Amino acid sequence: MRNFTTVHDVPDLDKLLDKALKVKKDPFATSGLGKHRTLGMIFLNPSLRTRMSTQKAAQNLGMNVISMNIDQDGWALELNDGTPMNGKTVEHVREAAAVMGEYCDILAIRCFPNLKNKDEDYGEQILIKFMKYCKKPIISLESATLHPLQSMADLITIKEHSSTRKPKVVLSWAPHIKPLPQAVPNSFAEWMNRSDVEFVITHPEGYELHEDYVKHASVTHDQDAALKDADFVYVKNWSSFSDYGKILSKDESWLINNKKLELTNDAKVMHCLPVRRGIELSDEILDGPSSLVVHQAANRVFAAQTVLTEILEHNFNPNGTAKNF
Amino acid sequence: MRNFTTVHDVPDLDKLLDKALKVKKDPFATSGLGKHRTLGMIFLNPSLRTRMSTQKAAQNLGMNVISMNIDQDGWALELNDGTPMNGKTVEHVREAAAVMGEYCDILAIRCFPNLKNKDEDYGEQILIKFMKYCKKPIISLESATLHPLQSMADLITIKEHSSTRKPKVVLSWAPHIKPLPQAVPNSFAEWMNRSDVEFVITHPEGYELHEDYVKHASVTHDQDAALKDADFVYVKNWSSFSDYGKILSKDESWLINNKKLELTNDAKVMHCLPVRRGIELSDEILDGPSSLVVHQAANRVFAAQTVLTEILEHNFNPNGTAKNF
Amino acid sequence: MRNFTTVHDVPDLDKLLDKALKVKKDPFATSGLGKHRTLGMIFLNPSLRTRMSTQKAAQNLGMNVISMNIDQDGWALELNDGTPMNGKTVEHVREAAAVMGEYCDILAIRCFPNLKNKDEDYGEQILIKFMKYCKKPIISLESATLHPLQSMADLITIKEHSSTRKPKVVLSWAPHIKPLPQAVPNSFAEWMNRSDVEFVITHPEGYELHEDYVKHASVTHDQDAALKDADFVYVKNWSSFSDYGKILSKDESWLINNKKLELTNDAKVMHCLPVRRGIELSDEILDGPSSLVVHQAANRVFAAQTVLTEILEHNFNPNGTAKNF
Repeated sequence: MRNFTTVHDVPDLDKLLDKALKVKKDPFATSGLGKHRTLGMIFLNPSLRTRMSTQKAAQNLGMNVISMNIDQDGWALELNDGTPMNGKTVEHVREAAAVMGEYCDILAIRCFPNLKNKDEDYGEQILIKFMKYCKKPIISLESATLHPLQSMADLITIKEHSSTRKPKVVLSWAPHIKPLPQAVPNSFAEWMNRSDVEFVITHPEGYELHEDYVKHASVTHDQDAALKDADFVYVKNWSSFSDYGKILSKDESWLINNKKLELTNDAKVMHCLPVRRGIELSDEILDGPSSLVVHQAANRVFAAQTVLTEILEHNFNPNGTAKNF
Repeated sequence: MRNFTTVHDVPDLDKLLDKALKVKKDPFATSGLGKHRTLGMIFLNPSLRTRMSTQKAAQNLGMNVISMNIDQDGWALELNDGTPMNGKTVEHVREAAAVMGEYCDILAIRCFPNLKNKDEDYGEQILIKFMKYCKKPIISLESATLHPLQSMADLITIKEHSSTRKPKVVLSWAPHIKPLPQAVPNSFAEWMNRSDVEFVITHPEGYELHEDYVKHASVTHDQDAALKDADFVYVKNWSSFSDYGKILSKDESWLINNKKLELTNDAKVMHCLPVRRGIELSDEILDGPSSLVVHQAANRVFAAQTVLTEILEHNFNPNGTAKNF
Repeated sequence: MRNFTTVHDVPDLDKLLDKALKVKKDPFATSGLGKHRTLGMIFLNPSLRTRMSTQKAAQNLGMNVISMNIDQDGWALELNDGTPMNGKTVEHVREAAAVMGEYCDILAIRCFPNLKNKDEDYGEQILIKFMKYCKKPIISLESATLHPLQSMADLITIKEHSSTRKPKVVLSWAPHIKPLPQAVPNSFAEWMNRSDVEFVITHPEGYELHEDYVKHASVTHDQDAALKDADFVYVKNWSSFSDYGKILSKDESWLINNKKLELTNDAKVMHCLPVRRGIELSDEILDGPSSLVVHQAANRVFAAQTVLTEILEHNFNPNGTAKNF
């Protein structure tokens, strides 16, 4: 594995998950693997879980970590080629990425969509251009359209808490007061579609996700039907993809509470956090025995550590030299 | 010792101070104690001394450090239970604390009072809720009402510079242009009341501190009487507790200068910093031989390192597993 | 070497450069030199390359790094003596520097000019007062008037890419939309004047640099004449020194492109970055074979690591105690 920006970067998903469970059992077993290696974490957007869990993962491997906050105001990057930079952008991604690549062995990047221009967001220019110009392995810490470390942690959590061979997993839209990216649901769908689960997506009309991620999942506007016999319910808000970035519904009946859980097979409830209590999920669920949200967050460390381990093993020689740059 | 948020968390103060002096003599004697342990430092307010000294202390013990700035704007935490989060708060402390507790072995938190609502501030909800939900030892890096690492460093400094068995220590209010918290004087009073010193507090009328911290200290509005034969003068501004958060006086005659020091027993002068020169303390004192302010700041490292050592020794097994979580 | 704030701090430039090339060949050869030593990095201004490369350099030596952002708003430092601090400044540099000196073994500081008051900027009060009060070695991470780590990296780059014994090096002014400091050109001139090169400076009228830095360099307003037979062209904008901080020209004919390079001896083109493409330098040069800009940035690590090595070796005993504080 060279980069980690989508499930398609993973050659063997089962093997990666087995490795993650081994890493979780003994996080310091390979604490020398990252010696003299530097992880650069570039944040174009704020982050709490991602920042802390990825830094922890790198330190468990003995890596050095350099974090940089690049505000879109304070250090705006130019993405377009050939236009004179006489505006607000102060550095072109060609130079910025190349330089950071010189200082770091692996780069991890966080960038959000603006939710205004669909083509721009789904074009993932920041991520793609960093991959092109930095010449080092790239890890997505959430991009405009995907959040693979979250989805990997989610899948680890499902594995750990699943009692059936092929669980029914439901991704259920939830209301929110702000328009949120589609990155988490897109990504979760991608990973579920690669896993041996029965995968159902339910949301109000107008909230259809991009078909590339939905693929062969069942989609329904009938939440109750979706919840029936579910083993896992993944709750998440997202803004509309077709009417791009818009809030089309705040229908409170989509909020999952204990009553709705009765429809399920005693389902576990998941959310990537941060969660707005009483808006996206009821207090009774978050404080009750069916919630897995803290387990998911905890597994972010082991997802990141496993990905870093894979990249270190496949791209660097034990003596510290890079294999293929 | 499980948490460190007040002097009442310290079972044996003399023993803790002896340990601190030993740590100061050889700060790297136990540089492997914190191996594979992570200290999370959470800042809800800016910090210079506290941030640097605590990070230094943790690194002296071989710990990893993860720092997070949580602005009250950028990542506002919800503290109330049961209210739908349809406002500015983006994450409930229940989730935030639980997740940070998963990533870190010890959490250190900095949060200030707003000085508007006395009950809210003195309720210490942020600290208490982090303690409740994070499931890991908590260190206060200054809370709404107390600043125990500062007071511990102050007491170490007094020990080092005291030539008498039972020194006279005077906490003397000073003017300031802004309303400041009562955390430092409250905390200093708490620690002095546990120490073998003659403790006097002097301030203008209306600046009485909460009786829980004053306890059996002498209190007087006559600064000159208080200063008489003092061995240590701790200078500090605070806003009114009774007329909560208000500035009742800017009386310049409270500023300590060399003339006032003549009343004392050649007293050493202390301040927690930052200090406004010419407002809180005269230049002649800060630049003269009686000032201990840089010694106090230097001792912040050894206070923090001793507390971390105590918590590591009592809550984690040598093989790295937690003892009692 | 005790401090590193100008080329005049370097006793033997050739020796320093030889050391830098050795460090670059094997950056981890002395990875234990900085054990238990702490580098404090103080940023009064934002930084990307400097922050990342200096942190990397320190970590290569096994040092701990503590970074502090001191915004001029959030934590304004008082520089003047004797004035009551009843305004916006919250801490005097005397205390701030002394305290940081207690926490760190080496302090590295970044501060920019305001470009409004020439005497204030060229007085370098922040740097000078930190040196006076912190009692520890000081490294400039760019000051109001100089940027020695950049110049040292530039000189390493020239050494590596020079095929003649005494190359012709041209510093060529470039247009920009904002008024920029003179620190990089001043510093580059200082270092070139100490090196065995033919050094020419070219700029429009009114952009004369301070004579202390220009010294025995040839200066011309005729860019074409300057470029003739050049081996290296260092492109950089700066604002006027005489009409202090002003933009006097945006003359696009000063932009270096491939056509202009034909005048040179197949010159390599340099820039300290960030660069505004199409304004300061043409895309064709930045994307072509003559550009050294990423090499320069990469060498920032080895410049910083060599300086840290020198300071550690000359100021600290192997057992970890300071030699001369």
